[in-house]
Amino acid sequence: MGLLTVGTVAFDTIETPNGKAENVVGGAALYAGLSASYFTNEVNIVSVIGGDYDDDTLELMKSRGMNLDGIQVKPGEKSFFWAGKYHDNMNARDTLTTELNVLADFDPVLPPHYSDDEYILLGNLTPDVQINVLDQLTSKPKLVVLDTMNFWMDIAMERLREAISRIDVLTINDEEARQLSGEYSLVKAAEVIRKMGPKTLIVKKGEHGALLFQDNQIFFAPALPLAEVFDPTGAGDTFAGGFIGYLVRSGDTSFESMKTAIIYGSAMASFCVERFSIERLKNLETEEIENRVQKFRDLVKF
Amino acid sequence: MGLLTVGTVAFDTIETPNGKAENVVGGAALYAGLSASYFTNEVNIVSVIGGDYDDDTLELMKSRGMNLDGIQVKPGEKSFFWAGKYHDNMNARDTLTTELNVLADFDPVLPPHYSDDEYILLGNLTPDVQINVLDQLTSKPKLVVLDTMNFWMDIAMERLREAISRIDVLTINDEEARQLSGEYSLVKAAEVIRKMGPKTLIVKKGEHGALLFQDNQIFFAPALPLAEVFDPTGAGDTFAGGFIGYLVRSGDTSFESMKTAIIYGSAMASFCVERFSIERLKNLETEEIENRVQKFRDLVKF
Repeated sequence: MGLLTVGTVAFDTIETPNGKAENVVGGAALYAGLSASYFTNEVNIVSVIGGDYDDDTLELMKSRGMNLDGIQVKPGEKSFFWAGKYHDNMNARDTLTTELNVLADFDPVLPPHYSDDEYILLGNLTPDVQINVLDQLTSKPKLVVLDTMNFWMDIAMERLREAISRIDVLTINDEEARQLSGEYSLVKAAEVIRKMGPKTLIVKKGEHGALLFQDNQIFFAPALPLAEVFDPTGAGDTFAGGFIGYLVRSGDTSFESMKTAIIYGSAMASFCVERFSIERLKNLETEEIENRVQKFRDLVKF
Repeated sequence: MGLLTVGTVAFDTIETPNGKAENVVGGAALYAGLSASYFTNEVNIVSVIGGDYDDDTLELMKSRGMNLDGIQVKPGEKSFFWAGKYHDNMNARDTLTTELNVLADFDPVLPPHYSDDEYILLGNLTPDVQINVLDQLTSKPKLVVLDTMNFWMDIAMERLREAISRIDVLTINDEEARQLSGEYSLVKAAEVIRKMGPKTLIVKKGEHGALLFQDNQIFFAPALPLAEVFDPTGAGDTFAGGFIGYLVRSGDTSFESMKTAIIYGSAMASFCVERFSIERLKNLETEEIENRVQKFRDLVKF
C-alpha cells in the first residue's frame, strides 16, 4: 500500500525577482514527499544526505508520517546543493551551481519493508538510480511514475529510454516532451512517447497548466492564475507528489481518477510557489486544500 | 440587435511549415464576420477593399447573411495585403510584407441602418478608425469588444488608450497585456487594464488557451490540443467573432454567458487553424460546432 518516493533531499540557493533564499532545504523527494503526506501516511523515502543536513527538516518529515529508513546519511560529507536564478518571467531559470556531493556515488538501497510498495515515484535523478530502484522491487507495483528532465536526455538517453520502458506514467515538461519525441505537437509527442512504454503521459506546462494523455483521451488541468509567483522551485515535484498521493488515497488508478489526481497535484503546486522553499507545505489544512481544488473547478466551469 | 464588425477584408500570403498559400483571402472582419455568422444573421461589416477583391468571397459573405453595405469599394486601388511566415512552433511569426493600399486613408462610414447596432466588434485596426466608428453610433450599444495588438501600443498608445477607455471588453494576447499594463502577472495586468476602462479583459494565449477577467472573477478556457495546426492566421479574429456572435444569439452579456461565449469562440478558432485561409469556416454544420464545444467540456471535466 505504501508510496515509495525516490529523489534528492538537498539544499538550494534561489534567486528570484522577489528576493534571495540561501541554503534553504529542497530536493525532489522532500517536496514530493511532503506533498504526498497530505494524502497518505505511508510515504517511504529513498535518498542520501550528508552529515550537514538540517535536523528540523528531518523531524518535520517524520512528524508528517514519512518513513526515512531509506535515507542514507553520510557523516562528514555534504548534501546535494543546487543554486539557480529565475528570470523575470519565472518560467525560465539559469542553474548557477550544481554540487553533487553525496549524490555523486549514490547507490540506493531499499529497506526490506519498502520493497513491496505498490506506488512508486521515481523523482528526477540519473536513470541508473531509477532503474536500480525498480530492480529492487520484490513484487509488481500498481503504479510507477517517473519524473525526469532534458539534462538526462542530453547525456544518458539510452538508459533513460530503458527506465521509461518500465514505467506507467511519465511526467515531463512541454519542451522535454518535444525533445524526447522529436514532435512539436504535444498530441503527436504523446503518441510517440507512449509507444516507448508508459501508458500515460503528463506534460507539465508551468503557468499554462498540464496535459494528461492516455490512449486517445486527453485531459487538461489549468494552472491557477496567481497575482504573484514567489518561487517556482519544487513546483513540479510537489505536483507529482500530490498526483500520486491522491491515487494512493483513492486506490483507483483509472483515467478518471488521474484527472482528479492531476488537479490535486496542481493545487499542491499552487501552494508551493507562494513562498520560498517548503515554507508553504509545512502545515496545510485539509480545508485549505479542498478550497484550492474548488478554485480549479470554478476556473473552468461553464 | 445587429452586430457591427469593423476590420480588414484583405489578401494574405502565408508560409507555414506545412506549405505556402499565396494571395488568399483574409482580414479581421472576414474571419470574425464568418465566425459570427454561425450565431446571428445580422452581421454588418464596415471595411474597405480595392477593385481587385475576390468576388466569390464577397458572395460567400452575402450568402452567409452578412451585410456588406458598409464595405467601401475603391476601383483601381488594391486591397490591404499582408505576408507572414510562421516559425516551426506556429506560436511566433514574422511579418514579411504589409501593404496598406486602400487602408492607408480609410475613413469608415456607417450606413444609417448600422448606427443603432447593439453589439460592436472593433477589429484590430488603427485606434483612430476604431474611435471614428464609436463616434458614429447613434445609441449606446449593449457591448463593445475591441481587439488590438502591440503595433498600436508602440506607435499610437495615446489614441489606443482613448479607444480602450470607451469599450466593454478588450481582447489581447498575454505579451500585449504585459506591455499595456507594465505587469508580468496576468492577474495584476488585468487589474491595471480594467482600470483603463473595459470592465472585462480577455487574454488570448494561443495554444495555451484564454483567460477571462471581470471584477474579481477569472475563467479559463483551454485550447484544444491539436495533432496539427495547419495555419494560425485569423484564429484570434475567428475567436472574437465566435465570442461576440454567441453573446448576440444569447442576448445575455453576463459573466456566466461570457464563459460559454469564450468556449464557442475557442471552438470556432480551432476550426480556423485546420486549413489555410477561411477554408474551414465556409460551411460548418451546427452539429460540428456543438461536438467541438463538447470536446472542450470533456477536456476539463473531472
